[in-house]
Amino acid sequence: MADPKNCLPLTRASVVAAHDLVRPNIHRTPVLTNSTLSKLASTPAQQEGQETTGEGQGKARPVIRLWFKCENLQRVGAFKVRGAFHAVERLKADEGWVAGGGLGRGVVTHSSGNHAQALALAARESGIPAHIIMPEISAPGKIAATKGYGANVIFSGSTSVEREAVAARVMAETGATLVPPYDHPDIILGQGTLGLEFQEQVEQLMAGAEGDATKVTNGTGGGEAPNGQKKKKGLDAIITPCGGGGMLSGVALSCEGTGIWVFGSEPSFQGADDCRRGLAAGKRVESVSTLTVADGLRTPVGALPWGIIHDRKLVRGVYAVSEEQITAALRLVLERMKVVVEPSAAVPLAVVLYNEEFRALVEREAGPEGWDVGVVFSGGNVGLDNLGRLFAS
Amino acid sequence: MADPKNCLPLTRASVVAAHDLVRPNIHRTPVLTNSTLSKLASTPAQQEGQETTGEGQGKARPVIRLWFKCENLQRVGAFKVRGAFHAVERLKADEGWVAGGGLGRGVVTHSSGNHAQALALAARESGIPAHIIMPEISAPGKIAATKGYGANVIFSGSTSVEREAVAARVMAETGATLVPPYDHPDIILGQGTLGLEFQEQVEQLMAGAEGDATKVTNGTGGGEAPNGQKKKKGLDAIITPCGGGGMLSGVALSCEGTGIWVFGSEPSFQGADDCRRGLAAGKRVESVSTLTVADGLRTPVGALPWGIIHDRKLVRGVYAVSEEQITAALRLVLERMKVVVEPSAAVPLAVVLYNEEFRALVEREAGPEGWDVGVVFSGGNVGLDNLGRLFAS
Repeated sequence: MADPKNCLPLTRASVVAAHDLVRPNIHRTPVLTNSTLSKLASTPAQQEGQETTGEGQGKARPVIRLWFKCENLQRVGAFKVRGAFHAVERLKADEGWVAGGGLGRGVVTHSSGNHAQALALAARESGIPAHIIMPEISAPGKIAATKGYGANVIFSGSTSVEREAVAARVMAETGATLVPPYDHPDIILGQGTLGLEFQEQVEQLMAGAEGDATKVTNGTGGGEAPNGQKKKKGLDAIITPCGGGGMLSGVALSCEGTGIWVFGSEPSFQGADDCRRGLAAGKRVESVSTLTVADGLRTPVGALPWGIIHDRKLVRGVYAVSEEQITAALRLVLERMKVVVEPSAAVPLAVVLYNEEFRALVEREAGPEGWDVGVVFSGGNVGLDNLGRLFAS
Repeated sequence: MADPKNCLPLTRASVVAAHDLVRPNIHRTPVLTNSTLSKLASTPAQQEGQETTGEGQGKARPVIRLWFKCENLQRVGAFKVRGAFHAVERLKADEGWVAGGGLGRGVVTHSSGNHAQALALAARESGIPAHIIMPEISAPGKIAATKGYGANVIFSGSTSVEREAVAARVMAETGATLVPPYDHPDIILGQGTLGLEFQEQVEQLMAGAEGDATKVTNGTGGGEAPNGQKKKKGLDAIITPCGGGGMLSGVALSCEGTGIWVFGSEPSFQGADDCRRGLAAGKRVESVSTLTVADGLRTPVGALPWGIIHDRKLVRGVYAVSEEQITAALRLVLERMKVVVEPSAAVPLAVVLYNEEFRALVEREAGPEGWDVGVVFSGGNVGLDNLGRLFAS
């Protein structure tokens, strides 16, 4: 991968440049709204699994209008193509890399799934080889899809350490260039492009000029959209999942200077909320071992993302939710919005609906005008067998 | 319900008038495309459950570009609100009905699900009572949703005869007006409005001027769209599910005189393909008893729809598929398109992908230019417990 020293600076302008570079390779995914979910978000939370007596008493009462950025409808079914195409395009533009035979040697990465498919696709479209190290326990559908893009799949253990060791060996053997899943400027800038689109699309939709933005208002509960109006147009906040932090930090860059607050969301199960814990302690948590249902968020936040999230304070907070809350949010998306997302993608909505600390913050900051909150549906790659197990009654 | 004698004639112009009437009450649902599914449709069929040796040999090789009308994203999650709102608006415009106390007496219907919710919503928004007769075996989610719209739910047996008997009793007791699920001109004209939108949206999308049409191109298989181009713009054919036939006949009316061919699709399980069998025999099949997984299509086609489908020859053919083919198509929609549809809504796609008779017809009629085929996703109301059972491994 391109030496980070030669990369673009980590700024909003660099995200704009990245967007210009990858636009031909990616979908401008639609933005959806849903009156039922906005109404739920604006109703005092009924904690999943709690008694309903006294429900909502003492709970926060934020006014929230939800907007959903559907990266589950992105190519390969996840936002990861943004970073992967950006990284590959930047390599191809690197004369030294090309002169050194980079096109023939190809790229290598380790990934539990979506980044694997994304890099395989980006490499194939440029006609360069891709070596993908995947944990043996990866979802069979993700392994098959990665092979389907013509990649050379090599299996490893499931911890970051095991994966990185195999990646180092493959690099030594093949001369391929590492394209890491999140901890690199080109990846961060690429993922941030979804934040730019999200900002533009919501502004267009609010202005009533849909342009190429796509809004679908659906809702099976028949609920009215919550009250609250405001003078300023556009999103007030964006909340994304946080695994390695590439997307969260990229979106944070895309919002720098706009006044839009950016938040992260994590599962709390088995310490998967490493970023939240790190922020509380003032020190990055470098290792995590969790089998949270949100399988895209099992990795610890990377060093470069951490610098944006923590050191530069471009993320206003990271919040965690339980497995039950993630599953409840996932059910709402599938049954009410009628779109398929993977469990990791339901984590931000779970925070909006169920995390009292986040909800109290919105109530306090937004007041009666309420906030327009952008929720990133990061991906949609979940097997039906997996969904069946999750919702077995 | 308004006396059929006072209803608008069953013509395309009446569908246009119906659209003007219901437009404020319904969503203009998006139209999606998917390169992976178009590619699959343009590949010789690999029959679900068959050996793969010799696959595709002797099979039809049509060129098909698929367009999906997402009524699963419609209000209440199904196209049924179109007919229900149209019927209620027509009643409210009937001076005799209003003078006779109709607004206070309300409406009544019998439905296995989506029409129940649709009429309950339409009645509530007009502030009139709704009495809904539902089979006791209806999905709990559909019963809860219908009650959630404020309707008075009354249970019955599951055959049409049992349901109609209870409806007659409720009408006698309450003076409420029957709004049948499909066998009435106002319902047929209302459902047909989705055909008008579909035609307009695809023309706009092909012209590159998206306007208020919504196109999402997604695809996780990375497939290219199939070859084939043609001079004429717009859809060549539309295929819809066929239960009672309200939507199929309404869409057929919306296409009258346009040159667009309209097809129906049914499950074959336990004789659910009553419309197909009736067309073959030249006589409507009036009774069906089936427990096909496509639970919205268990009813026999009604007399008025039959007149449009058979007598007026506005439907070019009706094709049937097996339970396995329906489930396979449903899996593709969920896993590849990332949208949630109910099993009934996957039946048209199953015909396009797996019914050799239909596929041979398209190959013959379309030739190398291929056809742009519109597939109606009729609804998205399926519980996750139900999906879990369907796809248990």
